[in-house]
Amino acid sequence: MAEPVVPRLFQGTRDVFPDELLARNAIQASLVTIFERYGFAPLETPAMEHLDILLGKYGPEGEKLIYKLAYKGGEVLALRYDLTVPFSRVMAMNRELPLPFKRWQIQPVWRADRPQPQQGRFREFIQCDVDTVGSESMAADAENVAVVHDGILACGIEDFRVKINHRRLLRGIILSAGIAATAEADVLRCVDKLDKIGLSGVRDELLALGMPATPTDRVLAIMDIEGDPSEVMAEAKRRLGDQEDAAVGLSELEELFRAAMALGVPTKRLQLDLHLTRGLDYYTGPVYEVVLTNTDNFGSLGGGGRYNDLMGIYGGAPLPATGVSIGLSRVLAALQKLGKLDSRPTPSEIFLTRMADVSLEALLQTGTALRAQGIAVETHYDSEKMKKLFERAERKKIPVLGILGGSEVSAGTVTLKHLGSGQQLTAVVASARETLASLIRTPTRPAGP
Amino acid sequence: MAEPVVPRLFQGTRDVFPDELLARNAIQASLVTIFERYGFAPLETPAMEHLDILLGKYGPEGEKLIYKLAYKGGEVLALRYDLTVPFSRVMAMNRELPLPFKRWQIQPVWRADRPQPQQGRFREFIQCDVDTVGSESMAADAENVAVVHDGILACGIEDFRVKINHRRLLRGIILSAGIAATAEADVLRCVDKLDKIGLSGVRDELLALGMPATPTDRVLAIMDIEGDPSEVMAEAKRRLGDQEDAAVGLSELEELFRAAMALGVPTKRLQLDLHLTRGLDYYTGPVYEVVLTNTDNFGSLGGGGRYNDLMGIYGGAPLPATGVSIGLSRVLAALQKLGKLDSRPTPSEIFLTRMADVSLEALLQTGTALRAQGIAVETHYDSEKMKKLFERAERKKIPVLGILGGSEVSAGTVTLKHLGSGQQLTAVVASARETLASLIRTPTRPAGP
Repeated sequence: MAEPVVPRLFQGTRDVFPDELLARNAIQASLVTIFERYGFAPLETPAMEHLDILLGKYGPEGEKLIYKLAYKGGEVLALRYDLTVPFSRVMAMNRELPLPFKRWQIQPVWRADRPQPQQGRFREFIQCDVDTVGSESMAADAENVAVVHDGILACGIEDFRVKINHRRLLRGIILSAGIAATAEADVLRCVDKLDKIGLSGVRDELLALGMPATPTDRVLAIMDIEGDPSEVMAEAKRRLGDQEDAAVGLSELEELFRAAMALGVPTKRLQLDLHLTRGLDYYTGPVYEVVLTNTDNFGSLGGGGRYNDLMGIYGGAPLPATGVSIGLSRVLAALQKLGKLDSRPTPSEIFLTRMADVSLEALLQTGTALRAQGIAVETHYDSEKMKKLFERAERKKIPVLGILGGSEVSAGTVTLKHLGSGQQLTAVVASARETLASLIRTPTRPAGP
Repeated sequence: MAEPVVPRLFQGTRDVFPDELLARNAIQASLVTIFERYGFAPLETPAMEHLDILLGKYGPEGEKLIYKLAYKGGEVLALRYDLTVPFSRVMAMNRELPLPFKRWQIQPVWRADRPQPQQGRFREFIQCDVDTVGSESMAADAENVAVVHDGILACGIEDFRVKINHRRLLRGIILSAGIAATAEADVLRCVDKLDKIGLSGVRDELLALGMPATPTDRVLAIMDIEGDPSEVMAEAKRRLGDQEDAAVGLSELEELFRAAMALGVPTKRLQLDLHLTRGLDYYTGPVYEVVLTNTDNFGSLGGGGRYNDLMGIYGGAPLPATGVSIGLSRVLAALQKLGKLDSRPTPSEIFLTRMADVSLEALLQTGTALRAQGIAVETHYDSEKMKKLFERAERKKIPVLGILGGSEVSAGTVTLKHLGSGQQLTAVVASARETLASLIRTPTRPAGP
């Protein structure tokens, strides 16, 4: 055994405790059910990748945050920075996969960022992505929109909408205003900061970058078109005429909105937002982002878009691709903000205890009989004074205290006391599920396994 | 975008594809249901730990395999090597957690090992642990045994048993044979190799270490006692007399077996195996290991034991602890060996396609109606010749091809063709679940969420 060391975490990392993880796992299960219902299959990639696989994909700011690891033997490794680039490596190495290939992936990623625990930003966090590779159809993008829509809804959030835009339409807006094609990335990067610095901030930054005032104002004016998607499309078409990029963007958006509605996404949750750019360099077509409605400045719950060029970087046939990412921690934060987070520090429903006249074996047997009904039971092995048992159950925040005395054992019953309400019932052990359900008034987990 | 690089994996790592992951996720879900039914709560720790947190815990052989990472700023980091040591750091840093604290944890670990892909050994793999901290009761160990028992059973494996032994009993056997206490670790390490090198190999190694022949043979003879647990205990007691360590070990084993049976573990799946040592240095009490019966040399599906000293390394009040680990990849391999692995390359049940006279919108609407019934549907957006559609569905290994023609759309039906049997049925879209079930004869996933 080693010398005692100070137990501590590496800066910017954290432990995730049961209250958060029980909620996150429930969200994850809801999302995975939706993903697989749309035909997305699970995939995992290793944490460590050769550094050169990751370089040149995330833009100058992103690249600084790649966790580079010097490994003995001189090999230069990196920790997974996102899920998209490793996935493109998988597609390049496995050309035999039947296309379109649809995959979901939920794994941690690492960023050598200045951690901001107060804002919930850590050096390790979970990403949750779905992507379709090998189809140029707007139906694949519409399925991304439908998947996030159905997924967020399944997590219990109703007041949200999916903002949609198109990179070709954005290019059309920029070019038709008279701004040079070479400035496109700069313009998009500025407009992406709209939520943070406001419209005048965006205008100031664009002018500071050397854009002339008139074209800049023309771009910002078109982006400001509001209304339902068909109105925005009509007005944009009127103002942009037959500019080629704009025409392609608008036509694809029309297909995308039609397909999303056919997939059952209600119009009220779809918005064509011409300000939306999404930060990353690699998008080539539609982009989307999920935001809460009725909640200001909350940021996005997820987003994505089409990136037809990224998958081609390793050579070979082109692989058009489109994907969407859901921010698990953002969904958790949203549920908390909406007061809908079911936060429990333990999965246990009953804290099962015994009086001094009951043997350990009888206690364990009762626990087994309860578990066979699908009830989650934590057993307290030692017999103790009733007051002590109450305190223990309360400290553990298990909703129901189960008390087993000698008379209960003889009768095949157990006393169940709801700690919140103080209500107490005698349950027949073999059918305790119904009694428990009536006591806590929330449905217990299904019997199984 | 960067220069093209050769897409490749870091040596000893791998991508995990849908066929394996769908099976592993199903196993994981079964296990987690069992874990939580016993009151174990989920916990996660970060991948990166300060190196000194991990040093001195895994023995000289293990320590060599810690993934040490030189990070800029001179800080020396390491990747998680197992789940137990990071968990002990969590317990040391969070003294307010109500004891006993029961947690499950499923996360990857990394070992700088010589990878042996043929034997399924990689540098990154998943560990799956449950531990109880803060109780000295043998009931906690019995719950570990019951959890692995119920868990393995829930995964669909029936022919297995849990081998159990006790480190104090082993010490008693060694001391009463006249071997010095200082040689204990060496003896255990040799005996641990029994499955690999056989009894004569173990004997040779012990003699080579300088153990005298007579005590060595005495130890090996006692370890060879066979029979059901009570017979082995009685015979061991007879031979070891009142040697203190043996007496403590035997008495705790008696409690453990009684408690495991009270928890519903059938006697036929419990074995007292006096050869069992478990490799790790930190065990102090009972140890257990799950093995297949009727299958030679398969190795273990998991194992664990009590480690009352490890959690104390950071100072403070002692924290008795006991835990068990299930090898997810071992369980997968066992299911494969037993022909029970449900291996599918995609979650999709229906590959939904359309004839030339059906619009994309009608196709997407039908997919949505099917998904609303809980059916997993992959939609093929383009209309193609029937032959081509068959080929695509077969390549994707989706069991049922759904064909939507103009007449089906008018009638609100869809043609479902089982690719394995060739059987074809017309299903009313709104109630396609039953038709699908009759076609594939295996239950479809439940409707919901």
